[in-house]
Amino acid sequence: MQLMLPSRISRRALLATLAALVALPPLLLFTAAQAQTDPLPSWNNGPAKQAIIEFVQVTTDRTNSKFVPPEARIATFDQDGTTWVEHPMYTQVMYCLERVPAVVEKKPELKNVEPFKTVLSGNREAIAKLPTKELLKILAVTLSGMTVDEFKAEATKWVTAAKHPRWDRLYTELTYQPMLEAMQYMRQNGYKTYIVTGGGQDFVRVYANRVYGIPPEQIVGTVGATQYGYGKNGKPFLTKEAKLLLNDDGTGKPAGIHMMIGVRPIIAFGNSTGDRQMLEYTKAGGGARLALLVLHDDAAREYAYGPAQGLPDTKVGKFTQALFDEAKRDGWLVISMKNDWKRIFAFE
Amino acid sequence: MQLMLPSRISRRALLATLAALVALPPLLLFTAAQAQTDPLPSWNNGPAKQAIIEFVQVTTDRTNSKFVPPEARIATFDQDGTTWVEHPMYTQVMYCLERVPAVVEKKPELKNVEPFKTVLSGNREAIAKLPTKELLKILAVTLSGMTVDEFKAEATKWVTAAKHPRWDRLYTELTYQPMLEAMQYMRQNGYKTYIVTGGGQDFVRVYANRVYGIPPEQIVGTVGATQYGYGKNGKPFLTKEAKLLLNDDGTGKPAGIHMMIGVRPIIAFGNSTGDRQMLEYTKAGGGARLALLVLHDDAAREYAYGPAQGLPDTKVGKFTQALFDEAKRDGWLVISMKNDWKRIFAFE
Repeated sequence: MQLMLPSRISRRALLATLAALVALPPLLLFTAAQAQTDPLPSWNNGPAKQAIIEFVQVTTDRTNSKFVPPEARIATFDQDGTTWVEHPMYTQVMYCLERVPAVVEKKPELKNVEPFKTVLSGNREAIAKLPTKELLKILAVTLSGMTVDEFKAEATKWVTAAKHPRWDRLYTELTYQPMLEAMQYMRQNGYKTYIVTGGGQDFVRVYANRVYGIPPEQIVGTVGATQYGYGKNGKPFLTKEAKLLLNDDGTGKPAGIHMMIGVRPIIAFGNSTGDRQMLEYTKAGGGARLALLVLHDDAAREYAYGPAQGLPDTKVGKFTQALFDEAKRDGWLVISMKNDWKRIFAFE
Repeated sequence: MQLMLPSRISRRALLATLAALVALPPLLLFTAAQAQTDPLPSWNNGPAKQAIIEFVQVTTDRTNSKFVPPEARIATFDQDGTTWVEHPMYTQVMYCLERVPAVVEKKPELKNVEPFKTVLSGNREAIAKLPTKELLKILAVTLSGMTVDEFKAEATKWVTAAKHPRWDRLYTELTYQPMLEAMQYMRQNGYKTYIVTGGGQDFVRVYANRVYGIPPEQIVGTVGATQYGYGKNGKPFLTKEAKLLLNDDGTGKPAGIHMMIGVRPIIAFGNSTGDRQMLEYTKAGGGARLALLVLHDDAAREYAYGPAQGLPDTKVGKFTQALFDEAKRDGWLVISMKNDWKRIFAFE
């Protein structure tokens, strides 16, 4: 921060300025400067944008009955379909599918075994039809058996190179600009932002700081066990095991939030049935509360799927009519991608 | 912060002060003020105090080759025997033993069943002899079956009333003043401080913010599963289950650190064999690293136990000669309570 001082200034004015500067916490200084500009420029004016801004304003205003002290300003964001594209398939599943050849090279006995055989065939249609049970086998094999550091190196390499088939861009470029703005706006107002995802905690941590500005300890995800051991040089390391500790989806989200944060969020963003319990849990606390769901209703700029509101059904990021009805009944906000977002991606 | 200004001051001096204040980030301002005073007044001058101060100085000095950026300044502290008294028995075990009558009232079928029968007898000698396997039964029954909020209310009530038999003071008053100073000193220098304990995460969270200045999300402890459900009013809640997700002791500590923080600490404090792997893991990273172990060698002011260095053996907080030898071999510091700590408790 630099101060522009007029060349002539009275001692009294200087003293007053000095006293004011010393008295104001840095956050307030920042907020005052921010108030001049729109904190959510990629959002169209409408109920969603208005609700977020109002919520942040009342919870940070000491004179408001809904004021929330900084330590309780916890905001949670689902990832797939809420902060980045999840269609045609979750990014981490793409990673796992693309890891299969490397794994089979080390374990040739898997070559002619399903579902690895189908994945190696490259037949996209057949791969898309693999049932969840078979997909889980692929996840287990590609996300365990290596050290934590090896996994981090492999995933980092992939994330900085692999591209989405529709846009031919890195997956990390397919984050939603309106949500990045919402995260930043909340952090500027003393909120702590968390990703709460069904995705693997270790996977998301690889890029979350760079992409979302969210550090590793604020990633709540699906957790596998790790095993402590020693290398030949006596150095200790952790190995990723194929043992699930927490499935951070559905009822697992409140459990994961309790384990990792220990404080109930006051605002939560999601987009599918897997976020239902997180939003219920968020809304069930006292004081100011806000729950929001992104509805993918924009086939032109992104994708359209529900099946809520007559949108096409999907296996990936299902938003049922029952979830839509619960949202309406309990005062959650539904964000229409089509109507509420002026711009979806930063590169637009 | 208040500034004391001399009554006569030149405009030039004021401008210079103002410019300096504005240019310096808040952290530096604070550090500059701190440099005048001893950051660790309850420590005697000696190798431990010197090592901590030197470590903080080199890791926060941008011109030093051992500089560590703020996001990697992770400090972990074991709790029992490291930041507060653990003898004659771990505080949380005392809590569980004292909860037994209330649990038996709700479940009368436990009244004549061991180990509950022994606990209800009040025979201290017999209770002290209960094997670990039996103690675990008591922990399972007293730490599960209630909602997360109920547990918090019960534990809060106990922690603000129950007293240690030797000092007749609240357990939370039996925290070690030198360690509280070390935590504060590190936080003032941009470190993030974590408790990494074999104790229950939910139990420690009840008082950690007030006692250590450490918020719930920075408590890494033993974790039990929670189950999401709905009350008769439709409100959701989490119930504590008797299912262990992470035993945050021994090899579980690096695993817990990886799960909860996702970043390897650069400095770690412990006091027993249960901290060995955390200290090894901390030291095994690159750059500046420091590992420290508290040795309880002060029977007069606190307790004396090892069996390292010929101190009496114990089941609670065992510090073996093998651990002592590993510490010497790998350059960990052993903190002698007797010699390194000028004052142990704030009330002294």
